[in-house]
Amino acid sequence: MADEQIVMAHGGGGALTHELLTETILPALGSSSYRLPDAADLPGEAGLVFTTDAFVVKPLFFRGGDIGSLSVHGTVNDLAVSGAKPIALTMTLVLEEGLSLETVEAVTASAGAAARACGAPIVAGDTKVVARGEADELFITTAGVGRRVPELTLPGLRDGDRVLISGPIADHGIAVMSQREGIDFQTRVRSDSAPVWPLVEALVAAGIDVHAMRDPTRGGLAAVCAEFAEDYGLSITLHEEDIPVRPETAAACSILGLDPLTVANEGKLTAFVAAEDADRALAALRSAPGGEHAAVIGVVTARRTVPVTLRTRFGGQRLVEMPYGEDLPRIC
Amino acid sequence: MADEQIVMAHGGGGALTHELLTETILPALGSSSYRLPDAADLPGEAGLVFTTDAFVVKPLFFRGGDIGSLSVHGTVNDLAVSGAKPIALTMTLVLEEGLSLETVEAVTASAGAAARACGAPIVAGDTKVVARGEADELFITTAGVGRRVPELTLPGLRDGDRVLISGPIADHGIAVMSQREGIDFQTRVRSDSAPVWPLVEALVAAGIDVHAMRDPTRGGLAAVCAEFAEDYGLSITLHEEDIPVRPETAAACSILGLDPLTVANEGKLTAFVAAEDADRALAALRSAPGGEHAAVIGVVTARRTVPVTLRTRFGGQRLVEMPYGEDLPRIC
Repeated sequence: MADEQIVMAHGGGGALTHELLTETILPALGSSSYRLPDAADLPGEAGLVFTTDAFVVKPLFFRGGDIGSLSVHGTVNDLAVSGAKPIALTMTLVLEEGLSLETVEAVTASAGAAARACGAPIVAGDTKVVARGEADELFITTAGVGRRVPELTLPGLRDGDRVLISGPIADHGIAVMSQREGIDFQTRVRSDSAPVWPLVEALVAAGIDVHAMRDPTRGGLAAVCAEFAEDYGLSITLHEEDIPVRPETAAACSILGLDPLTVANEGKLTAFVAAEDADRALAALRSAPGGEHAAVIGVVTARRTVPVTLRTRFGGQRLVEMPYGEDLPRIC
Repeated sequence: MADEQIVMAHGGGGALTHELLTETILPALGSSSYRLPDAADLPGEAGLVFTTDAFVVKPLFFRGGDIGSLSVHGTVNDLAVSGAKPIALTMTLVLEEGLSLETVEAVTASAGAAARACGAPIVAGDTKVVARGEADELFITTAGVGRRVPELTLPGLRDGDRVLISGPIADHGIAVMSQREGIDFQTRVRSDSAPVWPLVEALVAAGIDVHAMRDPTRGGLAAVCAEFAEDYGLSITLHEEDIPVRPETAAACSILGLDPLTVANEGKLTAFVAAEDADRALAALRSAPGGEHAAVIGVVTARRTVPVTLRTRFGGQRLVEMPYGEDLPRIC
């Protein structure tokens, strides 16, 4: 390991991020867990969960959002998929010398507005400055605490479960990439950056026994399915024709050579529910803001040779792998 | 503000940091407070406090510590001076492409060991990677939650209070600066990076009614006294001959042209107690690990013309001002 170095793919949310975590960071931290969860129970404080995320998205401002609101949505969404309603956030800024105060103001105003909209105020913070060339404009870290909703016990994936997604995938990654690379598509793709708590709340209100949830950010839907299949020793089959992808996003993916399944989302919910609850869960998601285009996109089965399979539009099948991580640097 | 830019002094913890917070960040966040506190109450969760800090110290490893342990101490100390025992921490890493995995491992091992020693496990985290030249090796943000000790009500400064410091000042800043600049002093100064909770616990065990506490980090003892004097509309007089400064640290300050009062500490406690409690508080601090050289260093008075004054060794007086912030970049 002495001469191994950090490469961009270590930050992509895929296989190499997982390796960095499980082989270097977690053993070094002395963690007893094989990974740090999206959000962890607060020791000795029943029902409270605690989470954090760093944001290095480039550019800072993109269609549909900016690093400020994104940093709020990312953290409240980690809480939401753990079944916890966000209570409060903290935020740190690392600023590069020479950055305009106007940018700092725009980003923090956006974060403040997003936090208010989520009902989770930013209650503490810290600001550091580094010299020109020692950071790229501005990085943010948010942390959040939430309280678990007792209705959501999240017992885990089961054989026969249906896979739901709350709306079209891959918009965030494509919005950021196309803007960064100056690629202009006929219809401009906007990031889906948004809180998923209203979607979770709708499932709770409908009395759905959600088995598991995740927001498919870095690594996309592919990473979420690969992780769940591995965690529970089950397999997942996704149906391509049922997975919502906006035509403009699909076109952009095709131009950029990206698989929409591996592209980041920042306001989508993946939920796993029993087959008999799937219709009611779908109706609940579709009734919630941001869930209008929700769909049932797959099924959980007993373990097969392949953990995750995509049944293609043309009746074929292909393996869905945990992305390696180098496709989309600095996407969140 | 349109053409105003971030300068290094915005990160120094002094007057310009304060201005950035009060004139740009807090209004933009829509905060009702005139500043973000060291640690804030968690809304609706009585007794729990929440805090965060970013760390950009350069170099990553310095005599007496490194960015990993420092990032744990900084956050648990913000909790401790709010009267809260740390419960759990989160940690994010922003890594520069090309950084050695060995460095990541050393830093996270140090953070893990420090967290265990403080009884506050790191329960969640996130890792991002940016390209070469887009960060300087590695930045860390930690967040922490703690539970307030009921004995510590921290009612605030009062006229007649005594000012205590738990040990020699300015070691952290001098250790980092001398190492970064390659200045070798005859006796090498070590950072004081350490948790202050054992000191706080000793005050509680002795039944001291602590009026206020702070850990004098960026901006040093001068910033702490200037802030408290401003917050309570009182004045503080410090007695130079009573303020502990190691001879090697004093020598280094003199060579570097720094005032020890404005240099960062990372394991010191400043406590304000009633005059009649001062002797017992001093004995309690001296009995705790890291408090062996504690001292009573000043007194709080009704507001005079000048908020903070230093009575010098030679019987003179000089104004102690909130440092502007440019002296010590990337000190924590």
